[in-house]
Amino acid sequence: MEPNSSSNDNNKMQLQHHSSCLEIAAMEVHRVVPPPHKSTIEKLKRRLKETFFPDDPLRQFKGQPLGKKWILAAQYIFPILEWGPNYSFKLFKSDIISGLTIASLAIPQGISYAKLANLPPIVGLYSSFVPPLVYTVLGSSRDLAVGPVSIASLIMGSMLRQEVSPTQNPVLFLQLAFTATFFGGLVQASLGLLRLGFIIDFLSKATLIGFMAGAAIIVSLQQLKSLLGITHFTNQMGLVPVMSSVFHNTKEGTKRPKLFWVSAGAPLVSVILSTLLVFAFKAQHHGISVIGKLQEGLNPPSWNMLKFHGSHLGLVMKTGLITGIISLTEGIAVGRTFAALKNYQVDGNKEMIAIGVMNIVGSSTSCYITTGAFSRSAVNHNAGAKTAVSNVVMSVTVMVTLLFLMPLFQYTPNVVLGAIIVTAVVGLIDVPAAHQIWKIDKFDFLVMLCAFLGVVFISVQEGLAIAVGISIFKILLQITRPKTVMLGNMPGSDIYRDLHHYNEAIRIPGFLILSIEAPINFANTTYLNERILRWIEEYEAEENLNKQSSLRFVILEMSAVSAIDTSGTSFFKDLRKAMEKKGLVLVNPLAEVLEKLQRSDDSGDFKRPDSLYLTVGEAVASLSSTIKAPSANYV
Amino acid sequence: MEPNSSSNDNNKMQLQHHSSCLEIAAMEVHRVVPPPHKSTIEKLKRRLKETFFPDDPLRQFKGQPLGKKWILAAQYIFPILEWGPNYSFKLFKSDIISGLTIASLAIPQGISYAKLANLPPIVGLYSSFVPPLVYTVLGSSRDLAVGPVSIASLIMGSMLRQEVSPTQNPVLFLQLAFTATFFGGLVQASLGLLRLGFIIDFLSKATLIGFMAGAAIIVSLQQLKSLLGITHFTNQMGLVPVMSSVFHNTKEGTKRPKLFWVSAGAPLVSVILSTLLVFAFKAQHHGISVIGKLQEGLNPPSWNMLKFHGSHLGLVMKTGLITGIISLTEGIAVGRTFAALKNYQVDGNKEMIAIGVMNIVGSSTSCYITTGAFSRSAVNHNAGAKTAVSNVVMSVTVMVTLLFLMPLFQYTPNVVLGAIIVTAVVGLIDVPAAHQIWKIDKFDFLVMLCAFLGVVFISVQEGLAIAVGISIFKILLQITRPKTVMLGNMPGSDIYRDLHHYNEAIRIPGFLILSIEAPINFANTTYLNERILRWIEEYEAEENLNKQSSLRFVILEMSAVSAIDTSGTSFFKDLRKAMEKKGLVLVNPLAEVLEKLQRSDDSGDFKRPDSLYLTVGEAVASLSSTIKAPSANYV
Repeated sequence: MEPNSSSNDNNKMQLQHHSSCLEIAAMEVHRVVPPPHKSTIEKLKRRLKETFFPDDPLRQFKGQPLGKKWILAAQYIFPILEWGPNYSFKLFKSDIISGLTIASLAIPQGISYAKLANLPPIVGLYSSFVPPLVYTVLGSSRDLAVGPVSIASLIMGSMLRQEVSPTQNPVLFLQLAFTATFFGGLVQASLGLLRLGFIIDFLSKATLIGFMAGAAIIVSLQQLKSLLGITHFTNQMGLVPVMSSVFHNTKEGTKRPKLFWVSAGAPLVSVILSTLLVFAFKAQHHGISVIGKLQEGLNPPSWNMLKFHGSHLGLVMKTGLITGIISLTEGIAVGRTFAALKNYQVDGNKEMIAIGVMNIVGSSTSCYITTGAFSRSAVNHNAGAKTAVSNVVMSVTVMVTLLFLMPLFQYTPNVVLGAIIVTAVVGLIDVPAAHQIWKIDKFDFLVMLCAFLGVVFISVQEGLAIAVGISIFKILLQITRPKTVMLGNMPGSDIYRDLHHYNEAIRIPGFLILSIEAPINFANTTYLNERILRWIEEYEAEENLNKQSSLRFVILEMSAVSAIDTSGTSFFKDLRKAMEKKGLVLVNPLAEVLEKLQRSDDSGDFKRPDSLYLTVGEAVASLSSTIKAPSANYV
Repeated sequence: MEPNSSSNDNNKMQLQHHSSCLEIAAMEVHRVVPPPHKSTIEKLKRRLKETFFPDDPLRQFKGQPLGKKWILAAQYIFPILEWGPNYSFKLFKSDIISGLTIASLAIPQGISYAKLANLPPIVGLYSSFVPPLVYTVLGSSRDLAVGPVSIASLIMGSMLRQEVSPTQNPVLFLQLAFTATFFGGLVQASLGLLRLGFIIDFLSKATLIGFMAGAAIIVSLQQLKSLLGITHFTNQMGLVPVMSSVFHNTKEGTKRPKLFWVSAGAPLVSVILSTLLVFAFKAQHHGISVIGKLQEGLNPPSWNMLKFHGSHLGLVMKTGLITGIISLTEGIAVGRTFAALKNYQVDGNKEMIAIGVMNIVGSSTSCYITTGAFSRSAVNHNAGAKTAVSNVVMSVTVMVTLLFLMPLFQYTPNVVLGAIIVTAVVGLIDVPAAHQIWKIDKFDFLVMLCAFLGVVFISVQEGLAIAVGISIFKILLQITRPKTVMLGNMPGSDIYRDLHHYNEAIRIPGFLILSIEAPINFANTTYLNERILRWIEEYEAEENLNKQSSLRFVILEMSAVSAIDTSGTSFFKDLRKAMEKKGLVLVNPLAEVLEKLQRSDDSGDFKRPDSLYLTVGEAVASLSSTIKAPSANYV
């Protein structure tokens, strides 16, 4: 900002221009006209369109010949038809490299995450075979690496364990897992079909960061089990039980950590090395637990294992809902992130349908819940993946493994899997992002903290619920207590801005100019009424001190009032009453607001030109002429 | 709107002024400066103050001598000390008239409402004696007529009846009623003390209108019982059972209606007449049920009847919560209405404490839930009440009745009480208001309808819950789907307004000017991103048709963006990326938003002067100079 002196000169310099401006404005005041009439039906249609079809998915169909329309429709449902035809060998070269890379991650991680969900390791590999193929056909992201993910596995495992023990009743547990996966897919697909994708938006970035950090810690602690080779270890969620049982077991667990740090490297290498080591030294006979025999062969069908009845149905549906939404959120977020990087669009609702169908199909081919994984997708992207073909390459590799390489895993020590999980999930703790959030918005940080602590100390579901609840509460609070800001004139112009923000802005005697910065509705009319009357009181109190000319007009700048309801309209009536002989002037009410105001007021107050202006400048200019004191001397 | 031709002339007329204006604007562009620095603590304090003390209740204390402070404090807690000292005989004359008038209503209504709550009639009179006295000392409304009210009585009666039968177990039922009243008062007082008064704002006017109409219908139907002299009549809530049992009993109930129409007149008169009739003709021996003997004397203490343990505690607390909030809403609404009429202030939170204490005291002096009644307060106001003394007059009259006149009620027929209730509650059905709501806001009408149908067909609690839920959902929807409006230039000025609202507004080639009309947060960033990119696409598509100069700048008018969170800040980063070589310009970001944006962006994009402007006019003026095409030719 330039020093005062110069700005003063500036003012003087502008003086004549300013006053001339005012006269001009006074000469030609723009009238506030009601918007062109629209029927209720039209408005409703528009509102619904904006709510459910903001991206106007069918606009590409407009004015196309029928044949073309069919092709477009097919391409819309199966994006592969879009990029497939002009797929080239050049693209394939990059896809095969990235595909093999993520396969080297997917195989060990698949086995590990399956164990995290208390499922047989082989299910993890099944889930890395079928779903990627389905996604390749339906999905519109080019970087998503599809398969089981740590968080969803963790949640499914811990939720189902509440009612059924995976060790005592493995078959039932497996059935519930598949059924939950089916419901998860159903939820995902229907969110997409019903265009309700915005529901996942309520999991804010802050919530997710806190949530994932918390989950990561829970998972890591759980893995201390296999890492420290602890045999009797609580599988319950929640920090307290886990910690206690860790401390309870450390004495026997002190000999493993070296192996832990070794295996923290690249997953596949460590799997191979450790497997070789175990095999060479017959370590499985010396207390190292290994995966053991895995049957070969591809996914067996599992639709006969889906149970839509029985006592556990409630739990299964709840599990499906939560894992479905969580994994959906991860998948969509990953897709959007890389789409933004490479500058292409992913249609949220289409993605949801794709992921949903993928899981429904998966649930009947021995797969549990899958989605696009953060870590593997990043690897996929960096390895230079060009299209979803890298997923095909991966799943072919997994297929080969399933058919021929299963015996090799017999000697893979569980400890390595634990290490793989830990290294994967530790990457989910995003400290820099947390710090950034702290820097920008303390309240978001609070939300993040609640999600984190909730997950760590209470439970995954409660933690999420609390965080979402707080974020929504914040929004409601913003509505219930909208900002009202006093505006002043920017010298040498007819611009009016926040007096507390722009120090050079000056008040105009006789005018109280307030800008209301929220929709006006039942939740805040009482507050606004109190607040505005207090503004007036304070203003007049000051004036009495400074012996200024008394308050004549209260101008409400309505540009920021995006909506109004019946409580809002009667609020204005009451306000006008309470103002007595002071004039209440509205500036630039938006179309919808203006309509409702004028429909609501029978007195016609809000139709009189001297109570409606298009800009504050014009209002002040034409009103100050009605005040005794000559309008010039207030600059 | 004037015909085109003239407006065209108008444009031409303005041409030179306009271009000159632009040059001037271009000459002296106002810089957008960051607001004066405030520490997090200061901001937090401000936020909290605005949230919990919007009315700044202690401002009168500022700069007063200590002695004066004590007096003010006393007056703040006991408003009677404010108006008491200068109370005059003249005032008393009006108060005594209005007091006697409301007493003539309060006595019969008190008895009736007590029966509505399944309580002994005498309790209704007790509740019209103590609470008014308490309110006179603590309350700040001059028109409120305090006592039992129909809705709250109805709710308490029906809720408690879910677990305890008032006929089989009258003592326990009475205990629960007093305890519920205690909890109700506790809720009310603490809402006031914790400055959480805004919670009752979430019962919007629309909700209340629908709710009360529904309740009125339920009550009236229930009263068919005594009106038709039906003996076996369901006491359950909900239309269906009531109706069925009515139809099931009409044959025996056909001989009373005449009496119903007679007694629909002024309550007291009808009570006296009917009582005399019954007494004269010994009608009580001919099937007309009468109140029967009532013991004389003032309120017995009842603190020993409060039960804070036992199996019904949960229900009692729930009942207290709901009746407390409902009656509080009625009381506050009535108080505010008449305060607005007579142009004095009632402090919402103070009123809540007053009503709360009143009920806590009441619960230990044999009174059930009371508040300021709609109907009686109106009568009080019209009868010329000047101060709360009219409540004293009323309660003295009630006292006299309790002491000496109770025997007279022995022969009062219950049918009269039923008639009194019906006439009172039918007045709660506000058809004109409903029609007004339909006229102004269809969605509010929907909310009202849900409240009404919910109360009638499901239950009082569910009906309320549904209506409140929908109203909150609407607010969230407005946040999730904020309006984005394309602005155009008003010819002959540098004002920019909604193109669809102001037909004369014209686009400016090369510029896409959007105004975002909501806070930007986690709930709407995804939508805004999609929507804005779609705006750009559509704009460019059109340009290709009209062969106009291509899009160079996207200007976002941020005046209406009242807040932003971390998701919002990263939304702007992504948007800037997605825009490629097009320029993204922000106009008039508000203090808080600007701060967060600048703190979040390390690239310094949002500090560059050519990406921040104070008005759209200045932005267009100074940016169009950078475009090849001479900026003049776009008018």
